[in-house]
Amino acid sequence: MSRPAAPNGHNPGPDMPIALDDARRILDSQPFSRLLGAELTAFAADAVELRIPLRPELLQQFGFAHGGLIAYAADNALTFAGGAALGPSVLTAEFKINFLRPVKGEVLVARAAVVHAGRRQAVCRCELFVQDDAGEHACAVALGTIVAFGPATEA
Amino acid sequence: MSRPAAPNGHNPGPDMPIALDDARRILDSQPFSRLLGAELTAFAADAVELRIPLRPELLQQFGFAHGGLIAYAADNALTFAGGAALGPSVLTAEFKINFLRPVKGEVLVARAAVVHAGRRQAVCRCELFVQDDAGEHACAVALGTIVAFGPATEA
Amino acid sequence: MSRPAAPNGHNPGPDMPIALDDARRILDSQPFSRLLGAELTAFAADAVELRIPLRPELLQQFGFAHGGLIAYAADNALTFAGGAALGPSVLTAEFKINFLRPVKGEVLVARAAVVHAGRRQAVCRCELFVQDDAGEHACAVALGTIVAFGPATEA
Amino acid sequence: MSRPAAPNGHNPGPDMPIALDDARRILDSQPFSRLLGAELTAFAADAVELRIPLRPELLQQFGFAHGGLIAYAADNALTFAGGAALGPSVLTAEFKINFLRPVKGEVLVARAAVVHAGRRQAVCRCELFVQDDAGEHACAVALGTIVAFGPATEA
Repeated sequence: MSRPAAPNGHNPGPDMPIALDDARRILDSQPFSRLLGAELTAFAADAVELRIPLRPELLQQFGFAHGGLIAYAADNALTFAGGAALGPSVLTAEFKINFLRPVKGEVLVARAAVVHAGRRQAVCRCELFVQDDAGEHACAVALGTIVAFGPATEA
Repeated sequence: MSRPAAPNGHNPGPDMPIALDDARRILDSQPFSRLLGAELTAFAADAVELRIPLRPELLQQFGFAHGGLIAYAADNALTFAGGAALGPSVLTAEFKINFLRPVKGEVLVARAAVVHAGRRQAVCRCELFVQDDAGEHACAVALGTIVAFGPATEA
Repeated sequence: MSRPAAPNGHNPGPDMPIALDDARRILDSQPFSRLLGAELTAFAADAVELRIPLRPELLQQFGFAHGGLIAYAADNALTFAGGAALGPSVLTAEFKINFLRPVKGEVLVARAAVVHAGRRQAVCRCELFVQDDAGEHACAVALGTIVAFGPATEA
Repeated sequence: MSRPAAPNGHNPGPDMPIALDDARRILDSQPFSRLLGAELTAFAADAVELRIPLRPELLQQFGFAHGGLIAYAADNALTFAGGAALGPSVLTAEFKINFLRPVKGEVLVARAAVVHAGRRQAVCRCELFVQDDAGEHACAVALGTIVAFGPATEA
């Protein structure tokens, strides 16, 4: 994650929460997230929501969402949840994902939240769903560690 | 994974190994893998190699490869390693990935191998590297479970 | 897991739920669980609770509960949650655990629940807490896969 | 991990490697490791070996080694591998384990090594084996993160 520098160059940090619009600009500054068409629809330490419309380029050979796309969504939702707690200069150190069922539908939704945050590190979880005409179905679950990196690393 | 149906519709299974060319056709039948530009350069239960040239669309906001891209590469390399042992009708049930360092370079390389395979399930590991002018550097490591699904599921 | 054979030798399966008393007998039939002093205080697919009084033999060199003990508690609580959904003949295929803080207190509590269950496999999660004079504190979180093994495997 | 304070109270750190005898004293200072009968037979960043004779108290109800015991062995071998790289004041932040087969035999052996170490954190892997009359068989594989904690935290 990252964010456009605030006018005074001040790092907002976890005590000055990043607003949803700012978080959206961070997401939009990731070329890979633009390539995949990811959208951020909620941003708070206890409720990040990332949505990805399932256009044909994102599928595997059977017409299901590719597992790698689902892993991307988990990774990024976990990172944004950690960023909501730790500030904008964070990255995912590790995560684990369990796929619950093949994913076919309109939209992939990843919802992440902080389980426990220290000053420099947050353990976050993510639940993933697919939305279709019949509603919303759980399709994967993930758990990972987000770490803050020093202000010097931030561009 | 999957593969173009053999002329006689026979499932080759693990006793009739999938050739590298066939495995490449499977990869190429995944729209998401084509979108990301993944190439398969080795295919055996003890040595799958997947390569992804790091073009700008695959990066995050600091110019590093996006973690979600690395997770995709791990997921797919693990699945192909499992497929080399179990046959073409497999999917990743779960995996875990640890990121070792930010990834900047020319090509992301994922090398996967089977750790242990039963008849219906394989535990596989994957090591990921980035190649640049100075050589090759480890950048992530993953471990996961690949499961075979019944022939009825295969298109 | 396992259970004393029902008088008629019938495997109760997920459709004939295992009662808490039966589940306790299963736990008590594990020599390792007796060695560690584990107690089962709730047993349902959405609410397994395992408790371990933190006697001195269970600690590491700083007086905290040993990480291996916490991993045991997660592993076993996950397995019992899976067993509540799948029947008594199950085992843990894999799990991941994140430690949130050093554990010092009176009792380690592991609470597990099924996230998603098929016929032969369940993905389960577990949250772990330590209880002391000041109340209850989250200390770890885990996520794993429980699989059923065939009736022939059961003694 | 920890170690008896050196006479001058100096923390040896990663630049003054911990000797095998010192590492054994650390293991022996863990009441839980003594309860389980764990022995350290090799200690280096690229080769930690922990052995646990499989006495009856360590089994589950079918006579196999309890999964929680295997998880303990993985956790502790990972921690010692991390300690060999980072110094004695380390703890396991998280790990994941895949069980490959039921474990029956004489001795459980966990072999761990550092995959990548920074100054404060090491990613380590562990392979577990069971030894019986017929030789040695792989039974589990693990991957995790070990972190150093500050000198102030060390007793």
